[in-house]
Amino acid sequence: GGQNRSAFPAAQGEHLHQKMSENGALPLRGKVLTVDTMNANVKKVDYAVRGPIVQRAVQIEKELKEGVKKPFEEVIKANIGDAHAMGQRPITFFRQVMALCTYPQLLDDNKFPEDAKNRARRILQSCGGNSIGAYTTSQGIDCVRHDVANYIQRRDGGIPSDPDNIYLTTGASDGIVTILKLLTAGEGRTRTGVMISIPQYPLYSASIAELGAVQINYYLNEEKCWSLDISELQRSLQAAREHCDPRVLCIINPGNPTGEPLRSFPYKTKSNYIYKGCEFHSFKKVLFEMGPEYSSKVELASFHSTSKCYMGECGFRGGYMEVINMDPEVKAQLTKLVSVRLCPPAPGQALMDLVVNSPQPGEPSYQTFIKERTDVLSALAEKAKLTEEILNTVPGISCNPVQGAMYSFPRITLPERAINEAKAKGQAPDMFYCMKLLEETGICLVPGSGFGQREGTYHFRMTILPPTDKLKIMLNKLKEFHQKFTQQYS
Amino acid sequence: GGQNRSAFPAAQGEHLHQKMSENGALPLRGKVLTVDTMNANVKKVDYAVRGPIVQRAVQIEKELKEGVKKPFEEVIKANIGDAHAMGQRPITFFRQVMALCTYPQLLDDNKFPEDAKNRARRILQSCGGNSIGAYTTSQGIDCVRHDVANYIQRRDGGIPSDPDNIYLTTGASDGIVTILKLLTAGEGRTRTGVMISIPQYPLYSASIAELGAVQINYYLNEEKCWSLDISELQRSLQAAREHCDPRVLCIINPGNPTGEPLRSFPYKTKSNYIYKGCEFHSFKKVLFEMGPEYSSKVELASFHSTSKCYMGECGFRGGYMEVINMDPEVKAQLTKLVSVRLCPPAPGQALMDLVVNSPQPGEPSYQTFIKERTDVLSALAEKAKLTEEILNTVPGISCNPVQGAMYSFPRITLPERAINEAKAKGQAPDMFYCMKLLEETGICLVPGSGFGQREGTYHFRMTILPPTDKLKIMLNKLKEFHQKFTQQYS
Ligand SMILES: Cc1ncc(COP(=O)(O)O)c(C=O)c1O
Ligand SMILES: Cc1ncc(COP(=O)(O)O)c(C=O)c1O
Repeated sequence: GGQNRSAFPAAQGEHLHQKMSENGALPLRGKVLTVDTMNANVKKVDYAVRGPIVQRAVQIEKELKEGVKKPFEEVIKANIGDAHAMGQRPITFFRQVMALCTYPQLLDDNKFPEDAKNRARRILQSCGGNSIGAYTTSQGIDCVRHDVANYIQRRDGGIPSDPDNIYLTTGASDGIVTILKLLTAGEGRTRTGVMISIPQYPLYSASIAELGAVQINYYLNEEKCWSLDISELQRSLQAAREHCDPRVLCIINPGNPTGEPLRSFPYKTKSNYIYKGCEFHSFKKVLFEMGPEYSSKVELASFHSTSKCYMGECGFRGGYMEVINMDPEVKAQLTKLVSVRLCPPAPGQALMDLVVNSPQPGEPSYQTFIKERTDVLSALAEKAKLTEEILNTVPGISCNPVQGAMYSFPRITLPERAINEAKAKGQAPDMFYCMKLLEETGICLVPGSGFGQREGTYHFRMTILPPTDKLKIMLNKLKEFHQKFTQQYS
Repeated sequence: GGQNRSAFPAAQGEHLHQKMSENGALPLRGKVLTVDTMNANVKKVDYAVRGPIVQRAVQIEKELKEGVKKPFEEVIKANIGDAHAMGQRPITFFRQVMALCTYPQLLDDNKFPEDAKNRARRILQSCGGNSIGAYTTSQGIDCVRHDVANYIQRRDGGIPSDPDNIYLTTGASDGIVTILKLLTAGEGRTRTGVMISIPQYPLYSASIAELGAVQINYYLNEEKCWSLDISELQRSLQAAREHCDPRVLCIINPGNPTGEPLRSFPYKTKSNYIYKGCEFHSFKKVLFEMGPEYSSKVELASFHSTSKCYMGECGFRGGYMEVINMDPEVKAQLTKLVSVRLCPPAPGQALMDLVVNSPQPGEPSYQTFIKERTDVLSALAEKAKLTEEILNTVPGISCNPVQGAMYSFPRITLPERAINEAKAKGQAPDMFYCMKLLEETGICLVPGSGFGQREGTYHFRMTILPPTDKLKIMLNKLKEFHQKFTQQYS
């Protein structure tokens, strides 16, 4: 039968008890839940990627639909790494397998290639009742976890990966929050501190705030192409020790929003990072290269998802994490914790499987798959170059090379008068700038203040995802706007 | 480009700083994360539905596969409301639309009915870039929220529902945890108390533990068919006031595990509940019948999902909640909070849409849809009756009528010697019983202690989902086991 569950804030105060005894009804005075009485940590949460700028952008889109005249015809959203929303097309093979898993009657349809059918059959065999509509085990579908482990093992040149260490997640976001939750403990000076890069992807600061952990900032070096200096890590760690217990170091690799790949941490390696799709620097591999003292001890959790990279399948909320050297008792606690929410979405798990187990040479879908992937990655590389080039022609904007990720984080010089006007309005100066940009051009970016930046510097984050022609128009509009803005406030 | 994010527990102690300055590497001593240093609230979390019994069941399945001899041939899992895993087939229309959304090339295929295509087109038009792979807005896809609001409005005989009050969620679990999170505040005697029924579905106690809120038990009346007595609510509220701030009343309707529909709360109504699929008692409607004093004031959050009912689509993790009379500032905080995880899975949202917007008379898929739904619901009704009847023939088992939900929660009488033996082993007596049942018969149930029960009473929860023939076999095995167990320990 159907179910409906209610969380029903009961009224407070003696009144409730008295009235209830008379007629069994609930009399109320005022709200039970107000900003004054709600969870204080939640209030501290900030999430700029979907903050006021984006809310205003949605409003403007509505106004445009209703026929309100604007100096532009459409809102261009370069605020979020959402490839499909920007027109990128899904990988055919992935969607074929997903359709087959969803509606297995299609397995009899000869329009679908055999390799897609085989993948679908294998995934369904691993599902309860052969249905993607069954709950999966909490840690995730068995065969998917095996495929993830194999993928990691290949990626790291044979260093073993154990499917028992793989947890499938609801996007990477879910895994990150879960691990931070496990790690948060203590009070006052013993409270868990979490080191995050500045700039950072705001999921980290938001989760730290929600959990009431302590945020510890380490600054990336903008002058050296957003690289990570050991001395800055030391400074930040040292300073944090005065007021909390630093227990976690978060690294985004390659960076969001900065795109900087890790080159020099935790120790120097030979390999060099180049813009090349999903290639990246594996911390696990580094640990193993450092020898058994490290590879058998350092506790590492790493996260990946279906959202980014060439596939850009954000809506499916597929993801995984690998935990290494986690204490077995803690791992049991982790498994218990994730079981409370039953399981990650099964379609997302299936899609994650396809990412780690894509068509192989000789399989019918291989050629098309490679072509589609290459097309996406070369378009990204081209757009990365375009972005850097055009932005660096603008006096007052300086942009590091866009590498590895799909974001640029250019620095902007703002006139003193603009800064003062923003401050008078109680706005961060780059928020003031981005809001004006949105109102005048329809371009939606996120101010650098949403990600963190060195005091007195200003940035915005822009994805490079819009189609090339639109990106060009956008960059030129941005150029024009910046010049006008600078003039206006000088 | 691809991304990989790491949460890297840094080492503690001065040692780290010294070694890092020499060679930039991280020396470690012992684990950073142990059961002693982890989040203490997480340790307190219990989740019986996937607890030790289920873990043992999974092991036994592996052993059977490896050829280990057992007194049974297969494990029958009646521990979780997972319809598809138990052989229930998905609703064809739902899966057709989902396949069309996933692989829109199928829109050209004339094997799919027009109404399925229309639904798919409409959903895709509401997605970024017309792709189910785009992030949706955090609150959920616009057209889905509208459809949910319309559905609720129809359900409640025209009482208005506002799409702005609808939040799509990752299963009901996600929504429930989010609302409890918002409500948790205060310290010591001012700490938020949450009233939950005993027995309860353990998501509630688990979330309360994780959030560090205070669990307040109110007991359902087993003698009166698991009904809810106002006097018991009063007792529980009164007692709670001594040590916390009771702010939330959770009600599961119909109950899990008890299946009791609400009849007399928050005030008496005329309607009677009968086993009939998804029909249920709407609290919102009751509030409106109580007049504007209540309907404009009582804060109510209610939850529904794609997991239960005739569809049983658990793996998709679709769900929604409606929040009523929520303070607008708190609602803004809620929207911000859910945006941190970006969005619920888009396929689950789409599926939720189909549940609230199923085929209508005159549409090509209507007949098949009604037939499939009726078949599922009548099978459930038959199995509910069968379960009650067979169990009540066993001396020492007594089972209330199975109504509304897909669970039974029979009471079992355990011999004194069995209770003592369990206690000597440090096990709850009904855990001892269920574990023995699993080892001897392969039947996997959840002990009543996982849901809570009155001190000194013992139960198990059994879903009625196995196919009728299997259910019969299972019930008869259970009968035999219970008689043997009783003899053995008398
Ligand atoms: C660094 C980083 N972490 C986490 C996420 C969350 O991604 P998802 O939850 O969609 O996998 C993103 C998305 O942009 C990201 O850039
Ligand atoms: C009372 C109750 N709440 C919540 C849930 C969670 O369901 P889901 O998250 O799959 O929607 C269940 C599932 O059995 C339930 O019975």
